Amino acid sequence: MEPEFTYPFSETVNHLKSSDIRDLMKYAIHPDYISFAGGMPNNHLFPVDEVEEIYHNLPRDIKELAFQYGPTTGYPPLREAVKKYMESKGISFENHDVLITTGSLQGIYIISELFLDPSDTVLAELPSFIGALTLFKSFQAHVEGVPMDRDGLIPEKLRHAYKKQNNVKFLYAIPNFHNPAGLIYSKERREFILSFIKENNLVLLEDDAYNELYFDEEDRALTRPLLAMADEQTAKQIIYAGTFSKIFGPGFRLGWLILPKGIFNKAEIIKQSLDACSPNFSQVIADTFLREGYMEKYLERIRPQYKLRRDLVLQAVRKYFPEEVKYVEPKGGFYLWIELPGQVEAKKVLDYALDNGVVFVLGKSFSPDDSLVNTFRIAYSNVETDEIDKAIRIIGEGIYKAMSEVGV
Amino acid sequence: MEPEFTYPFSETVNHLKSSDIRDLMKYAIHPDYISFAGGMPNNHLFPVDEVEEIYHNLPRDIKELAFQYGPTTGYPPLREAVKKYMESKGISFENHDVLITTGSLQGIYIISELFLDPSDTVLAELPSFIGALTLFKSFQAHVEGVPMDRDGLIPEKLRHAYKKQNNVKFLYAIPNFHNPAGLIYSKERREFILSFIKENNLVLLEDDAYNELYFDEEDRALTRPLLAMADEQTAKQIIYAGTFSKIFGPGFRLGWLILPKGIFNKAEIIKQSLDACSPNFSQVIADTFLREGYMEKYLERIRPQYKLRRDLVLQAVRKYFPEEVKYVEPKGGFYLWIELPGQVEAKKVLDYALDNGVVFVLGKSFSPDDSLVNTFRIAYSNVETDEIDKAIRIIGEGIYKAMSEVGV
Repeated sequence: MEPEFTYPFSETVNHLKSSDIRDLMKYAIHPDYISFAGGMPNNHLFPVDEVEEIYHNLPRDIKELAFQYGPTTGYPPLREAVKKYMESKGISFENHDVLITTGSLQGIYIISELFLDPSDTVLAELPSFIGALTLFKSFQAHVEGVPMDRDGLIPEKLRHAYKKQNNVKFLYAIPNFHNPAGLIYSKERREFILSFIKENNLVLLEDDAYNELYFDEEDRALTRPLLAMADEQTAKQIIYAGTFSKIFGPGFRLGWLILPKGIFNKAEIIKQSLDACSPNFSQVIADTFLREGYMEKYLERIRPQYKLRRDLVLQAVRKYFPEEVKYVEPKGGFYLWIELPGQVEAKKVLDYALDNGVVFVLGKSFSPDDSLVNTFRIAYSNVETDEIDKAIRIIGEGIYKAMSEVGV
Repeated sequence: MEPEFTYPFSETVNHLKSSDIRDLMKYAIHPDYISFAGGMPNNHLFPVDEVEEIYHNLPRDIKELAFQYGPTTGYPPLREAVKKYMESKGISFENHDVLITTGSLQGIYIISELFLDPSDTVLAELPSFIGALTLFKSFQAHVEGVPMDRDGLIPEKLRHAYKKQNNVKFLYAIPNFHNPAGLIYSKERREFILSFIKENNLVLLEDDAYNELYFDEEDRALTRPLLAMADEQTAKQIIYAGTFSKIFGPGFRLGWLILPKGIFNKAEIIKQSLDACSPNFSQVIADTFLREGYMEKYLERIRPQYKLRRDLVLQAVRKYFPEEVKYVEPKGGFYLWIELPGQVEAKKVLDYALDNGVVFVLGKSFSPDDSLVNTFRIAYSNVETDEIDKAIRIIGEGIYKAMSEVGV
């Protein structure tokens, strides 16, 4: 037998690691498991008929455009529609511009390429979005996790982390309906973040994927983007990442970056090499979806559905989980974050749950240094309502079992 | 006035350059210009009605899947359909597997990330696809252009270039209906490339974007991929990049890599950070398009259309261009490559053409070192047939003018 061929890998390749969620996902899509694992919209709520209607009604020349290459910065009408939409949330485009991206993860990739050299530091919330953490590490950056309380990043912890680290290139934060922590930043904490980046000339990457998914109209005001709250100078330090994944469908792979004009052209050049342009077909459809009011109606339909799932989960948690378990009641979004007493390993709970047909993601997956072993995330967005009580009961049994094993 | 904010750019950013085609593209989409600039399918030939039919007939659960995140490696039925399609071209999946990419450019990006460290070398045809050249350079690689004749890469030139360069990581080649050179490799030259990579343990990245666009059935046999021709061991050194851009529509942003199994997992991890997964909506539609015979019918419809444009362009070139101009008659694809006498600058011809409402791309854009100043590319794919004669006449006038200025 001939020897295997030796591939001339780059040095970067050694720093690539597979996300540890990957293995778990085989359970998440397995029909025999009830899954709280996937951070994804509900399969049965997508606007599948609306898209058929939208495509059918497009003029022929626009349909043809949808099949063609488009500008690297995005389909021009969609860029305008996104600007108008973001202006309605208080964001000004005086010093910023919109770049359409192939999902918001590509946006985060572009920002990483813009700023990160090996051994640079990114400050991120602890816990944080696993996709971003994996990505930052693939750039050989050090990710420093900064603890949060129920109102967001803890001021003294952020100050401490910033002082401790060299070459901090940016702060990555998810102020609204945080993935995975399920919390929303208080107004005071938002103001603190703004004064902190101003004082320290720090760039902020604001990931606002869940902005629209508030459950109660009265909480809408809480979701105001930091970019909208910032003064004109501070706004230049803020990059905002939005996505159609939660307000339309992840399958279109569409997001956007709102970039200070000083970095827009560089970001466009990076985007050009990544995939030339985002899918024009998706962009043409999303443009009509946003512009002609389909999105607003769709959101009105799905908010109560996610709220219902949140309610059912909380109801079951109160019924089946021991009192020692801590959590923040989510006011929106997809996630409930569970903290067990310090000495109890969430892994034991997951083992029990998997044995009994239920799956979720361990908290340590969302930590840059595998800490948070006593936590886990329940994503209630893509479960059937009639399965919630049973599944939470099983997790509760697992918690009692794990606690008793360590004598809690 | 406050000072502008200074962004903490990475070192990589300094190596990013905008493709010089970008500025030209404003003419390419301007209604007052006849454009031979864009290397893109014809706007009016896309299967816009077929897609409506395909979506309409999809079962509800598949429509829902189209809106959701999918596996990083691709929508499983599409991966199977692509394998079957590629097997029909003689490619074996004994030691290879398919990764769906967001356009073939993303595939080339993934391969670059896999192999390229700064100051590594990529061997590429001279001229070559500008998107790939720009991308390789963004990785701070040196791109060594290797001259071609009408049959493909010239053996002694390739041997010489390989010997001269250190850290050659791979050879990038486009054997079928080359962009921008418009030629197809002869069987002998294909065999030479295979024996060359075998002898030198060199990786080959085979870009086969134009495989299906032969004009005459008898030329079909010429398009056999190098990966299909290679022996089992040599095949492990070959990565094949395919795309739906020319057989369906670039707006779906779908391509595929056929990867030796020894690098598949690493490529998947890179893909995960780039955009998590390719657009599932595009993938679900493309799967039906390929699987249910829509693609074959579509290709039968478009081949004669592109052939017609090739014929009209050649007819006009014979009529209006001076005898000193050299070119190879394309047997397929989108491009006619024009070589002027050595001392004549194509830039002068372009200036004249732009003044008279015609646009094309200079040959030096396709050269890694801005050589080839006496060449240009005519992309005839996306022009109206009744504009060709006039536009080629104008270019011809420009050539005579440029030649007379240098006394040819």
